[in-house]
Amino acid sequence: MDGRAVILLTGASGFLGRHVLARLRAEGAAELHAVSRTPPPGGSDGVIWHAADLLAPGAPDALIDAVRPTHLLHNAWTAKPGRFWTDPENLAWLRATSELLASFARNVGRHFVGVGSCAEYDWTGAVFDEDTTPIRPATLYGKAKAAAGATALAYDAAGAFTAAWGRVFLPYGPGDTPGRLLPTVVATLRADREMSLGDGEVVRDFVLASDAADLLARLLVGGASGSYNIGSGQPTRIAEAVGYVAERLERSDLLRFNARSSPVAEPRRLVAEMGKIRSTLGWQAPTPLHAGLDRFLASTLA
Amino acid sequence: MDGRAVILLTGASGFLGRHVLARLRAEGAAELHAVSRTPPPGGSDGVIWHAADLLAPGAPDALIDAVRPTHLLHNAWTAKPGRFWTDPENLAWLRATSELLASFARNVGRHFVGVGSCAEYDWTGAVFDEDTTPIRPATLYGKAKAAAGATALAYDAAGAFTAAWGRVFLPYGPGDTPGRLLPTVVATLRADREMSLGDGEVVRDFVLASDAADLLARLLVGGASGSYNIGSGQPTRIAEAVGYVAERLERSDLLRFNARSSPVAEPRRLVAEMGKIRSTLGWQAPTPLHAGLDRFLASTLA
Repeated sequence: MDGRAVILLTGASGFLGRHVLARLRAEGAAELHAVSRTPPPGGSDGVIWHAADLLAPGAPDALIDAVRPTHLLHNAWTAKPGRFWTDPENLAWLRATSELLASFARNVGRHFVGVGSCAEYDWTGAVFDEDTTPIRPATLYGKAKAAAGATALAYDAAGAFTAAWGRVFLPYGPGDTPGRLLPTVVATLRADREMSLGDGEVVRDFVLASDAADLLARLLVGGASGSYNIGSGQPTRIAEAVGYVAERLERSDLLRFNARSSPVAEPRRLVAEMGKIRSTLGWQAPTPLHAGLDRFLASTLA
Repeated sequence: MDGRAVILLTGASGFLGRHVLARLRAEGAAELHAVSRTPPPGGSDGVIWHAADLLAPGAPDALIDAVRPTHLLHNAWTAKPGRFWTDPENLAWLRATSELLASFARNVGRHFVGVGSCAEYDWTGAVFDEDTTPIRPATLYGKAKAAAGATALAYDAAGAFTAAWGRVFLPYGPGDTPGRLLPTVVATLRADREMSLGDGEVVRDFVLASDAADLLARLLVGGASGSYNIGSGQPTRIAEAVGYVAERLERSDLLRFNARSSPVAEPRRLVAEMGKIRSTLGWQAPTPLHAGLDRFLASTLA
């Protein structure tokens, strides 16, 4: 990425988006644009904000025409807790992504990074590897993300621009959205109420949002092509993560596992293979879980 | 499909499209619309023709708004012999397909059938089955078709409309496009010139275009969901098909195998599993190869 680079980040005021924006600001190497339906009042230093609803007809074209980004990190998507798996709005985001990609190619686009999901993989297997695990999503969210990723990588194959697709596992950390797992645990226990959970023994790949943002930013700045897992590579039982949070809040007594079922049939184990992104980006170790959870808990008191 | 059905066929004047149109006309159960950049002069009985270039900005929307189809069979795509594997126009067709799907969902769309390709599959395997073979296309054409198919099936998953995606193997028959394999063999041998071919021992699934059209029409009329192979299920060596044609033309002496290489690294064996479409559509046997080739040869004399 040279001095004439113009970066555009979509979904910049979402949970993961805010971490990506902070990381790109720290990079400081390019003109940095951010888009959100509701930019923060007053904006932020070193960022040119744009207010836009990318689902409005013509909005992706208008935004790309206005900013003329050379580098596009497309993070915006529907993410409403409990609803996103089956939300028809997934189709609108797939359509908007298709429009963004076409506009980017028509303009001066050089490199694209999109935010995908571990939900794109065939969940019946035990290993989740970018280049050997079949893409066979079980949910609408996963299907729409996979279609968007396949579309982005077709532009790469055609030489329109280079493209990387980051499949995010289970992000957590400061700024996490109310209604998602850990914010709900914290809010419920602090209210002295019982916390109903699903099966605590299922294993997930918790990745601190700032670590995930770092990987996505590296894919953008480094110009990588292809699909990459964005995780920690560390297997964590849900009971272990939630249990640690409850212990720190001294309310382990309020946890009730196996008290609710998931809205979708989720796999027992979903942990990223991290070999490819490690060898491509030189990335080393993720933030240890307890350190990440401590940061998350501290942020909820701020 | 009930009496109020309105069918729209795209790519209706292409090789496969003409066979599909004939098959849908024979069905006779619905108002039938066909679109092409260049409709045949005078049109055809029982078909309402529309002249449109679906790659023009806004054209998919305008067409869907005008026809308001309940059933859409989307066959249009780039298919220039020798060029389609790597043609950047694949991206334009992917974009146009995304627009068609969104317009179809906004209007009165009930069922969609798209035309995909065996090039979507991971070619390194030996078995090409809709639900177990990974989608891992090696070419731009395959990647763009796979992205379009994934997009269509996301609409199905969201309940916007039902959708089937037919992955066509190697169609041949009357009306085949000049520049494709068998028309080139016929033209070359009739000109008393040597015919340079690749490896004659590679095995392909030759499917008579009218058989493929029948399967696609059944997917449309029957309202099937999901992906389906459109082939014959019969393994045929290239040398066997080409050899039969040359024999009928009494010019076997002009064939030169291993005299040219393919523009893409193609697999040794590419034959459709037909169990799924057989059990879904009640389809039985394909037209035998020699009978199909005789029909093709007869058409080249007409």
